[in-house]
Amino acid sequence: MNLYEFTINKLKERGVSIDDIAIIVFDLQKKYIDSISLDECTIALKRVLNKREVIHAVLTGIAIDEAVENKNFPNPLWEIINNDYSLYGIDEILALGIVNIYGSIAFTNFGYLDKEKPQIIGKLDSLGKNDNCCHTFLDDIVCALAASAASKIAHNFSEN
Amino acid sequence: MNLYEFTINKLKERGVSIDDIAIIVFDLQKKYIDSISLDECTIALKRVLNKREVIHAVLTGIAIDEAVENKNFPNPLWEIINNDYSLYGIDEILALGIVNIYGSIAFTNFGYLDKEKPQIIGKLDSLGKNDNCCHTFLDDIVCALAASAASKIAHNFSEN
Amino acid sequence: MNLYEFTINKLKERGVSIDDIAIIVFDLQKKYIDSISLDECTIALKRVLNKREVIHAVLTGIAIDEAVENKNFPNPLWEIINNDYSLYGIDEILALGIVNIYGSIAFTNFGYLDKEKPQIIGKLDSLGKNDNCCHTFLDDIVCALAASAASKIAHNFSEN
Amino acid sequence: MNLYEFTINKLKERGVSIDDIAIIVFDLQKKYIDSISLDECTIALKRVLNKREVIHAVLTGIAIDEAVENKNFPNPLWEIINNDYSLYGIDEILALGIVNIYGSIAFTNFGYLDKEKPQIIGKLDSLGKNDNCCHTFLDDIVCALAASAASKIAHNFSEN
Repeated sequence: MNLYEFTINKLKERGVSIDDIAIIVFDLQKKYIDSISLDECTIALKRVLNKREVIHAVLTGIAIDEAVENKNFPNPLWEIINNDYSLYGIDEILALGIVNIYGSIAFTNFGYLDKEKPQIIGKLDSLGKNDNCCHTFLDDIVCALAASAASKIAHNFSEN
Repeated sequence: MNLYEFTINKLKERGVSIDDIAIIVFDLQKKYIDSISLDECTIALKRVLNKREVIHAVLTGIAIDEAVENKNFPNPLWEIINNDYSLYGIDEILALGIVNIYGSIAFTNFGYLDKEKPQIIGKLDSLGKNDNCCHTFLDDIVCALAASAASKIAHNFSEN
Repeated sequence: MNLYEFTINKLKERGVSIDDIAIIVFDLQKKYIDSISLDECTIALKRVLNKREVIHAVLTGIAIDEAVENKNFPNPLWEIINNDYSLYGIDEILALGIVNIYGSIAFTNFGYLDKEKPQIIGKLDSLGKNDNCCHTFLDDIVCALAASAASKIAHNFSEN
Repeated sequence: MNLYEFTINKLKERGVSIDDIAIIVFDLQKKYIDSISLDECTIALKRVLNKREVIHAVLTGIAIDEAVENKNFPNPLWEIINNDYSLYGIDEILALGIVNIYGSIAFTNFGYLDKEKPQIIGKLDSLGKNDNCCHTFLDDIVCALAASAASKIAHNFSEN
């Protein structure tokens, strides 16, 4: 299994499917591109997930969430991350490592998704408030993946 | 007149008052901080506008908008900026130069404002579509100023 | 003439050839990749220069330099940019708009080049100190183009 | 013990003293400011280390290094981080979370330090190659702290 497949599986294991993210991409872009299909969103998303720096960001964020769940991160950091403290900021920094690569449309979409929390993003956020579940990094990563795929589609579309 | 006052006056000349931006800051933060006042938002905004790199970004963005209005920018760039082409991207880059300094809450708020375009931001965007008026940089700058002031308030609040 | 060719010509008109930048890329990467050729550096650089957001950043930076030379930018900004004031900061912000897209190796190389100013970068910097010549944005843009091409080569190389 | 003191102690525990970083700041700035003293560098550095987002970045980076040393991070990520794989990129992303706040001079200095690895930065890098020792994040964090303090001094100096 290569790193790309490993990353898709890891997201799945943490409760996030490709379809969960692709539908957010679709909702972001349908107001700008009438003819857009969910398939195009899935293709764009998979290309984002094929980039090395994206894979590294996704795996690092999930590894931190898991280390917190397994109580393998020291205090006071453990408590800050476990409570998804709004001024922690490092979860967004990691997500920006993804968004950066996809230009300014990705930035705008990221901020919007992080604030509105549609679909799976809102679900991850709620589940993360339960004991033994930490999604502090995962919800921002999903925002970044969707925002980046949407930016990729916007750029590709204008090239036709 | 110092650079700070010059910048406030320049914004005013371009149709944006301190109050226009402060009300956006207030609307962003009132859901998180019950006791917030418009005065606090104004104070935070003025402190943002006192930073050297912020002043440089504001003045540079406005100077480009004006150079485009005065037809002092060459083609093909003139057309790209005059039409506020959605894939231009440099207006957001300049705005991120402001937002960067105020951390990840500023990023999220910036994306949200750039997408939702509340109040003066939407007005600037509409006016910019008229002949002889270019707000390609100014609307993003106002988003960045409001987002940064909101982030400053969030950080200060948690310190009390 | 398409936008890509227009941009290459514009750089040439401002005193910067593809070869001038490619040799910097070569010098950056030869310590890491024994077998690297100048041709590979040229190819990577041309691919960087083919990206829309890169083209927009290059053209915007040069347009500002030219507006300053033609005294079409207002004071106090004119004086700040004309003197390449070290705390101006917006020249680097625009360059980071390019570097961002090419990941963290591009960042590191950018900072190094901006500090060391090898070859054409140093020449642009010196020439810019003359009357009627402004290279405040151009030298940072050349740093960003070289740093991004070097990062692209590093990523491609490791994929083989 | 507050978070600031905790962070200073944690750096010390990982082999990095305030003096180790302050001397790098001094070496960066002495060519620009004749009258600079090591004390000023120490004061600027301590103010950087007092910022919440800086503290979070430092503690998160060190926690990852330690989790890797303790084999509490899963493969394939463990191997990538343990070997300080040059295309990993997330160590620089985290460091940029610090540098971002201090503007463009901080960016330039960061790239320079990350490439030249003076003093403690080179030592951390070498030690990190030993078994049971991981400094993948720590060396970039030290670069970021020194670069940010140098930028702070440059900005303060010009205000006098």
